[in-house]
Amino acid sequence: MTPATPRTLTDTAVDTASVIELLERGRTLATPMLRAAVARLAPPMDSVAAYHFGWIDAQGNPARGDGGKAVRPALALLSAEAAGAEPATGVPGAVAVELVHNFSLLHDDLMDGDEQRRHRDTVWKVHGPAQAILVGDALFALAGEVLLELGTAEAARATRRLTLATRKLIDGQAQDISYEHREKVTVAECLEMEGNKTGALLACATSIGAVLGGADEATADALEAYGHHLGLAFQAVDDLLGIWGDPSATGKLPWSDLRQRKKSLPVVAALAGGGPAAERLGELLAADAAKSQREFEDFSEEEFATRAGLIEEAGGREWTSQEARRRHATALAALDGVDMPDRVREQFAALADFVVVREG
Amino acid sequence: MTPATPRTLTDTAVDTASVIELLERGRTLATPMLRAAVARLAPPMDSVAAYHFGWIDAQGNPARGDGGKAVRPALALLSAEAAGAEPATGVPGAVAVELVHNFSLLHDDLMDGDEQRRHRDTVWKVHGPAQAILVGDALFALAGEVLLELGTAEAARATRRLTLATRKLIDGQAQDISYEHREKVTVAECLEMEGNKTGALLACATSIGAVLGGADEATADALEAYGHHLGLAFQAVDDLLGIWGDPSATGKLPWSDLRQRKKSLPVVAALAGGGPAAERLGELLAADAAKSQREFEDFSEEEFATRAGLIEEAGGREWTSQEARRRHATALAALDGVDMPDRVREQFAALADFVVVREG
Repeated sequence: MTPATPRTLTDTAVDTASVIELLERGRTLATPMLRAAVARLAPPMDSVAAYHFGWIDAQGNPARGDGGKAVRPALALLSAEAAGAEPATGVPGAVAVELVHNFSLLHDDLMDGDEQRRHRDTVWKVHGPAQAILVGDALFALAGEVLLELGTAEAARATRRLTLATRKLIDGQAQDISYEHREKVTVAECLEMEGNKTGALLACATSIGAVLGGADEATADALEAYGHHLGLAFQAVDDLLGIWGDPSATGKLPWSDLRQRKKSLPVVAALAGGGPAAERLGELLAADAAKSQREFEDFSEEEFATRAGLIEEAGGREWTSQEARRRHATALAALDGVDMPDRVREQFAALADFVVVREG
Repeated sequence: MTPATPRTLTDTAVDTASVIELLERGRTLATPMLRAAVARLAPPMDSVAAYHFGWIDAQGNPARGDGGKAVRPALALLSAEAAGAEPATGVPGAVAVELVHNFSLLHDDLMDGDEQRRHRDTVWKVHGPAQAILVGDALFALAGEVLLELGTAEAARATRRLTLATRKLIDGQAQDISYEHREKVTVAECLEMEGNKTGALLACATSIGAVLGGADEATADALEAYGHHLGLAFQAVDDLLGIWGDPSATGKLPWSDLRQRKKSLPVVAALAGGGPAAERLGELLAADAAKSQREFEDFSEEEFATRAGLIEEAGGREWTSQEARRRHATALAALDGVDMPDRVREQFAALADFVVVREG
């Protein structure tokens, strides 16, 4: 039960079997309660939500869709164990976090005009904008409901943390939208946005089980710190995959984020680095920004490859890759002060490794 | 402190001075905390929310806009007094309910495509759909935040009740949207929808101060019953004003709800009544439903007046007016079992009277 000796990603091979088991446990324990919560919604919101979660197709037939990696439920259960409680203690927390996560996906996809999510048409595309708004709202309300009906002081603390995380999520989306219209975004601004959009809810997932299990505030804060940095590591890797990911693994088009003119971490880090490649990149992106969406979409593969090459030459790819490793190390270090079973600590480490080395 | 003798609206003149004082007190005590909560939002969401509340105009200059009647904050403060607590005990409840109410206005206006609210352009019209979604979400999250940061068991109970009320609000909006596309809506369905859309949050406002003041569940339930029926009385009067209201008092066009082809209570009650006027009305409305929005908007005043006349002839106006009085009486009767100071009971009665006799 002593803090583990400092380790880095390069010390170990990722324990993939352990991670798969952990993700599977989260899915298996949380899904029945998640489905029961969604079934409380009045028609047609219950079906719209079931479509979003991939449980039915657009025609209402049962489906076995891709419900995402389910990192958050796995973290919530592990979080309960970190506080010495049973994994089951974390289940309402896992469900509440998943409800908030999916509330934000429903609304973000509509705001961003994204037509695809997990290889399927998004809810606003299939069921219209009003259903995307309504069902998102309903999932957010359900999150508070499943926690507060526990009726305990711990549940109230957990709900408060979840509410604060949700506000950060919303702040992050507001920043993401405002950055789209700005010429220049700094690395610090990009990291703040990603901390809000991805870090805050992963942080909450990592503390919520422990809070429900009666952990004190200091323990909850340390677990949140792990989740926050893990979220930033996750996002850095996502940003790398968004440009250089293998389409067969990511399910996205090559240079996906460049096609969306996203000011992601590799881009802002490249521009911040200075030098001739950064200058040339800055000129190209400024010209791109002035183009209409249609003109821009007609770019050849080569034009995107040129931009990706300049980002790499200016050091944006390497910086982001290093950033993922730094955040990975900081996440693990945050757990040093928390007393928890060695097995649980190892699983937190395995999850962190998985997040950083994944390819899709 | 004994239950008052049964009274009906016709027994008394409405104590308007007392109601104005009550509404003013609610506004005065709740607004500073509401403004402080909204000020927590990151830019530009703080300004968008301030515009929605009427505190600034579209250019960002200070404004003294119409923030609505503020019935809910007045009820929340009175609710605290009903439990023997100070009015101030109800303030976080008043603020949370106002935040949820305005979250729903922001989203509903966008879903319904409504361009005007309180004589001003709606948020989605001025700041775009994304801001209406985002700021609505943020206000909903803030509601939980201001309650749960009290850190008491009472606050957790209050948040749970507010969350359940919010889900009903969302159910009501879902029903409202689905009824638009249906040929026939029954009186029962219309009342269910109005109970969800208007009753649930007024019910929560009427119990939340008492819950924060430590009232037991039975007292909170009785207060909610008053608020629920008051909400239905309020909505019945709103539906009457929506057709026959004086435009100079309502600030809306004449026959406003008919222009929107709303299946409001007078309409569905008229159709349910049967007889030649109901039949003729049914034929006209079926033909109206087949028209495009533009064709329909080109109707002359006379065509709307014909429809309003048929609704009245078929008994829809009288039924709705009686319904308002029935709900008014049921609301007051719900308070009979609750032990509270006579002055507080009289103020609940005066508010109920005001809701039913108002003209705008």
